[in-house]
Amino acid sequence: MAEPVSLEEARRRFLAALPAGPAGGAPAALAAALGRVLALAACADRDLPPFDRSLVDGFAVRCGGAARPTLAGAVAMGGAAPTLPADGAIAVPTGGMIPDGADAVVMQEHVTMGDGWVEIHRPPVPEQNIVRRGSDAAAGDVVVPAGARLRPPEIAMLGTVGVGRVRVRPRPRIAVLSTGDELAPVGVQPRLGQVPDSNAPALCAALQRDGAKPVFLGIVPDARVAVVKAVRRGLRYDALVCTGGSSVGERDYVQGALEEVLGAPPLFSGISIRPGRPTAAFVVGGQWAVALPGHAVSALVVYEVLLREVILRFGGETNPRLRGTVQVTLAAEVRAPADRDLFERVRIDDGRAVPLRGPAATVGNLARADALVRCAAGQVLEAGTSVQALVLD
Amino acid sequence: MAEPVSLEEARRRFLAALPAGPAGGAPAALAAALGRVLALAACADRDLPPFDRSLVDGFAVRCGGAARPTLAGAVAMGGAAPTLPADGAIAVPTGGMIPDGADAVVMQEHVTMGDGWVEIHRPPVPEQNIVRRGSDAAAGDVVVPAGARLRPPEIAMLGTVGVGRVRVRPRPRIAVLSTGDELAPVGVQPRLGQVPDSNAPALCAALQRDGAKPVFLGIVPDARVAVVKAVRRGLRYDALVCTGGSSVGERDYVQGALEEVLGAPPLFSGISIRPGRPTAAFVVGGQWAVALPGHAVSALVVYEVLLREVILRFGGETNPRLRGTVQVTLAAEVRAPADRDLFERVRIDDGRAVPLRGPAATVGNLARADALVRCAAGQVLEAGTSVQALVLD
Repeated sequence: MAEPVSLEEARRRFLAALPAGPAGGAPAALAAALGRVLALAACADRDLPPFDRSLVDGFAVRCGGAARPTLAGAVAMGGAAPTLPADGAIAVPTGGMIPDGADAVVMQEHVTMGDGWVEIHRPPVPEQNIVRRGSDAAAGDVVVPAGARLRPPEIAMLGTVGVGRVRVRPRPRIAVLSTGDELAPVGVQPRLGQVPDSNAPALCAALQRDGAKPVFLGIVPDARVAVVKAVRRGLRYDALVCTGGSSVGERDYVQGALEEVLGAPPLFSGISIRPGRPTAAFVVGGQWAVALPGHAVSALVVYEVLLREVILRFGGETNPRLRGTVQVTLAAEVRAPADRDLFERVRIDDGRAVPLRGPAATVGNLARADALVRCAAGQVLEAGTSVQALVLD
Repeated sequence: MAEPVSLEEARRRFLAALPAGPAGGAPAALAAALGRVLALAACADRDLPPFDRSLVDGFAVRCGGAARPTLAGAVAMGGAAPTLPADGAIAVPTGGMIPDGADAVVMQEHVTMGDGWVEIHRPPVPEQNIVRRGSDAAAGDVVVPAGARLRPPEIAMLGTVGVGRVRVRPRPRIAVLSTGDELAPVGVQPRLGQVPDSNAPALCAALQRDGAKPVFLGIVPDARVAVVKAVRRGLRYDALVCTGGSSVGERDYVQGALEEVLGAPPLFSGISIRPGRPTAAFVVGGQWAVALPGHAVSALVVYEVLLREVILRFGGETNPRLRGTVQVTLAAEVRAPADRDLFERVRIDDGRAVPLRGPAATVGNLARADALVRCAAGQVLEAGTSVQALVLD
């Protein structure tokens, strides 16, 4: 077995070799584009805001003018503004257009209204309560770059520049292949000695969450010819994620099959983490595949700490958003093995992180976990230590 | 105008009064249940694991037996195990069933294989490399509680107990109503003085992300009768989210309309935060509605810091997951107004948080933001201060 690499080295090799994901762009209605990746930069179609606007309900005036200006009209919401006469004031609502000639808005709370005039209690300062045309973006400016994943704020921004439909990157189609004689399809009663293939729905769900289109290819037995055939089928999709048989044991055929079909050795075979060591990745030309461990906890931890970013970038996201973390205090000791970094599953209770321990073979410790705490190889994090934990969402 | 309440008080009142969301449960395939809320607790249909399993590839033995036991067979992956004879060893793959009579598995790396025997280099200790039947969960145990939102780990857990379909809570149907004479529908060229209604797609996207089913009711002008009529229509849905006209200005009809139609005063009117002060919430019997400010930044910040949790709980989630935060160092000072907590929008660059400032009227500062930093009323957070920022996802 090859020497395992660090998680950082695995990530570096994987991202350096990763091909561009499927190109092109499909049109999507703005409200339905949540989570999609923008295929083309969106530019402001006009200055933003498109006219000088008031930030408050009040009176547009010229600084240095009369303390009791004549009320010379009102701006209607959604209407054009009249011009401000000398020593006049014009009523303007929040968001309303600023009249030509005005350079400040006095809040209505700071005036007394009379019959045809307003009395200003505090002399205004220039630009007060005004947001100028073009101050957010000028016409032609990029307001959302290509490669951005659309959150609600980006959708608001696109709406603001009048974009009702956007071109988004296609979802990469990722084949998911389960291998193992011990697996029964979820929902089918397993025979004695069998376990349900829980990786398939869990990985499909994770891929879907991260903007890909999973295609489950089914369960393949631990037989060389069957695995090679299934891998060939999987590589017709944009990429292939296999689980099980990823080690180099007697009946672990996945790595060998990938190497044979792709005609190249893995980028790495083995990552020095627990759980998740028997992981290998292959990139040849525009194709890539990953062999994940068969245990559900191992497969999902590797997904979260490595594969997720690969999937997001392959989907066209230039700069995946920060993962959330939480600062927690360990309720009990966490101890890594000598040769591997440990990702301990923790339940978080009022700022205290309770290690759930348990082997990778039992998924309960992951399903009860709120976050992962990393402990470096050979290290001990004592109870009471404050650590950043990666939120599992 | 009523005295604004703190964000914590607004949250307390809102959650204390919040009715239960739509009940019942629709069946969903496990792989399609991501992000849905489980309607009924899922119990283990058998012990988990369902039989004693090996954690490694190796040889099942009895501790204290021969140092060179006879090789008495092999467990097939997915098959039942034979019984271990005295002073024998049985080959067992990772995940394979442990033979009756064995109490340890010796890793294959720690034996020498001979012709019909294996030589064990290190005496095994009881239970080594075995995960016992039922150690993750016993038959009948709740493995995923009702009210859990399904992440990939819960989906793996449900798959592990053989659940192929689940009953999930219905998505609450939330009506979204935009009010304001200045609004043009997104995609329609605004007249001079108008701006696109960017809140509608942005709020619909946020609601969709959080498991609700948004129903956009369109734009209503600033006219009392029209607003009352639209509010009546909106209250036919499970809940109603309005934007714009939420203050108590001359032409702000939303609060009044909600009070009139629901026949009760708001739970609160005004929250002492910037942006987002003119926010009001109403709960009467099983109905609820919220009036958000019209500025996109204000509406979305209130959504993130208050309404999001309300939507998640209304959708049936008992205990919404932790929001991710990041520890960052402020690149510049953040200064809150005297009377309100500030939620400053920040861009995060290599652990440094750059305040984006800019008024709530311009959405660019939110679209460029990675996170929100809270600064208490009257306080200054100096440049260089380390703070927790709420990740915007």
